[in-house]
Amino acid sequence: MKQAVVLGGGMVGATMAEDLLQPPEGGGEAFAVTIVDRDAARLAALASKNPGLATRQADLSDAAQIKAAIAEADVVCGALSSTLGFNALRAVVEEGKAYADISFMTQDPLDLDALARERGASAVVDCGVAPGTSNLLCGAALARFDALERLTIYVGGLPRIRTLPYEYKAGFAPSDVIEEYTRPVYVVEGGVVICKEALSEPELLDFEGVGTLEAFLTDGLRSLIKTIKIPHLCEKTMRYPGHRALMKAFRDTGLFSPEPISVRGQEVIPLEVTSALLFPKWTFEEGEEDLVTMRVIAEGTIGGKSARTTWSMLDRYDPATGRTSMSRTTAFPATIVARLLAAGQLEPGVIAPEQLGIAGRAEEILSGLRARGVDYTRVDE
Amino acid sequence: MKQAVVLGGGMVGATMAEDLLQPPEGGGEAFAVTIVDRDAARLAALASKNPGLATRQADLSDAAQIKAAIAEADVVCGALSSTLGFNALRAVVEEGKAYADISFMTQDPLDLDALARERGASAVVDCGVAPGTSNLLCGAALARFDALERLTIYVGGLPRIRTLPYEYKAGFAPSDVIEEYTRPVYVVEGGVVICKEALSEPELLDFEGVGTLEAFLTDGLRSLIKTIKIPHLCEKTMRYPGHRALMKAFRDTGLFSPEPISVRGQEVIPLEVTSALLFPKWTFEEGEEDLVTMRVIAEGTIGGKSARTTWSMLDRYDPATGRTSMSRTTAFPATIVARLLAAGQLEPGVIAPEQLGIAGRAEEILSGLRARGVDYTRVDE
Repeated sequence: MKQAVVLGGGMVGATMAEDLLQPPEGGGEAFAVTIVDRDAARLAALASKNPGLATRQADLSDAAQIKAAIAEADVVCGALSSTLGFNALRAVVEEGKAYADISFMTQDPLDLDALARERGASAVVDCGVAPGTSNLLCGAALARFDALERLTIYVGGLPRIRTLPYEYKAGFAPSDVIEEYTRPVYVVEGGVVICKEALSEPELLDFEGVGTLEAFLTDGLRSLIKTIKIPHLCEKTMRYPGHRALMKAFRDTGLFSPEPISVRGQEVIPLEVTSALLFPKWTFEEGEEDLVTMRVIAEGTIGGKSARTTWSMLDRYDPATGRTSMSRTTAFPATIVARLLAAGQLEPGVIAPEQLGIAGRAEEILSGLRARGVDYTRVDE
Repeated sequence: MKQAVVLGGGMVGATMAEDLLQPPEGGGEAFAVTIVDRDAARLAALASKNPGLATRQADLSDAAQIKAAIAEADVVCGALSSTLGFNALRAVVEEGKAYADISFMTQDPLDLDALARERGASAVVDCGVAPGTSNLLCGAALARFDALERLTIYVGGLPRIRTLPYEYKAGFAPSDVIEEYTRPVYVVEGGVVICKEALSEPELLDFEGVGTLEAFLTDGLRSLIKTIKIPHLCEKTMRYPGHRALMKAFRDTGLFSPEPISVRGQEVIPLEVTSALLFPKWTFEEGEEDLVTMRVIAEGTIGGKSARTTWSMLDRYDPATGRTSMSRTTAFPATIVARLLAAGQLEPGVIAPEQLGIAGRAEEILSGLRARGVDYTRVDE
């Protein structure tokens, strides 16, 4: 039986491990899985829930401990916080291991491409929902169209029940959400990379089964700006209407600012105060239902005619397994890719998911997602 | 020439001083006026703008300094911050002086009534716009109706130009505004005093010349709860629609909380951080136009028939004098009452403005306001 190691025992890492422990519907093998985390209590809870799951306690900010943990692995999956992602990627690549990673990182993972080729490591990065499946679909669109003019990605993770004032809870680290609301946004317009303000260019969209959502610019294109050279490219985050204006008010008041201010002679960082107050309110309760929805629209020409392809996905919390939609839609692309990696089907290098789409591998990954209940439908016009 | 002393050299105190220096339209005398403040630069600016205005530097948190400043006064006006108001009132009352005061205070000024009677001091407190003219109109309503069933006060001070996200600037101390958004609200319903949440019970109202405003409960009845015993009594603050929801989000996030929280091992008071960020954004620019609007609705029976009387006021920034509407509508009730006090027309005691209304003195005060351009119109139905 092949060995898989999952780095990170959070919600997504746990879902990855549980998926790899089973032979998937539609065919495939089960893995011997070890999940690695710093937190012993969390590991004990995972082990008691999943018979057959091996656990290992390690400090994942320490490259040596990562390397020891993955020594026997045929494939590694990563689901780490944004502070740990890049260093872990480097450690896995240095060991020449196959890696399917969903960890967000501010650094550019493609900087490690040469090292990965040298070490014979195949590392598929940003391999979650968005970035992740969104990239895969963009690659598929590039392969499908003769001339691709425009790609627009809409994505949102939301609580099913809307409660004021935020009508939002964070499906991943709240600090990364606030990062998305503040970080400058890079989009492509007329073939030129342009910097815009986060939360700008709001628009309302109707989603069947969800209702009206408000989409606005956030910085999420990452590798796509380099890998897909087309005239127009942007990503928008979706929330229930009103959340954007509230977050803009918070941000424009300075409540998300990382710059210290002086309050009664004491240096205080507003972002830290706001975070301390906000994050408990943004945390999903046990069993609280979430949903994830995505729409990718590709426009251009096929056979000399204008064409448009729209992929849509709406996924919900799974009460049977207690898995959140965010963990399902994020973990499954990585475990499906991990199976491809373990079968030796991908070349060495740091690989962005759109490269799999460009290479014609989108359908097998989408069909793996469909087998797990995450259904991306396609409409061609 | 009679002597008037104005305590507090802020926007309202300056407007009081300027009003008292002139004989008013429609008859009355000019006073010799001394304005008292802690800030020498502020006093110098006032003196250079107003020939004939005397200034005096003093610490108005020190009763002895107040008493020295008012020793020669025939009448005193007060326009002090909420931290100074009650102690200044006591000092003036102890000296047996006539006092027209608009200073907000959390303490109950009527507690000093016995002392005022003993010292022969007539002190009209809460003598601004609301509390102030609103109380006067409530008193006038009580005098007018045979059976008064319900009094509703709507009042708002707003910037003329609406700018997101707040669509608001503070016409008085921003800390007192936040107090209004957090302090429990006392209203009378069915003759019973009930405590409600600030910002609750929003309703939309249309105001000619302003458009649609959103009114919500704030705690402003103060003395009216004791002095006007009727079944239904409430006060609502008006803002441009949306401001309330934003402030509720701030408050419910904990950003207005005076309770310290621990942030990276450091005790921080969220209210202080929010205030440091918010107050500069809520400060009117020099020459930026404001408006104040009020509606008081009295319902009950007159001569056995249902009746309703509505007083409405819309006042704007005065570009000729550079006086804000908030300073005009707040200062003038006090200077009009100061003239009554200087003429010896009011009995000793701490007097709430509704008592003047009950005693049939509303019309002469409203006509003084009208002469100064602040026009309360009355509609009887």
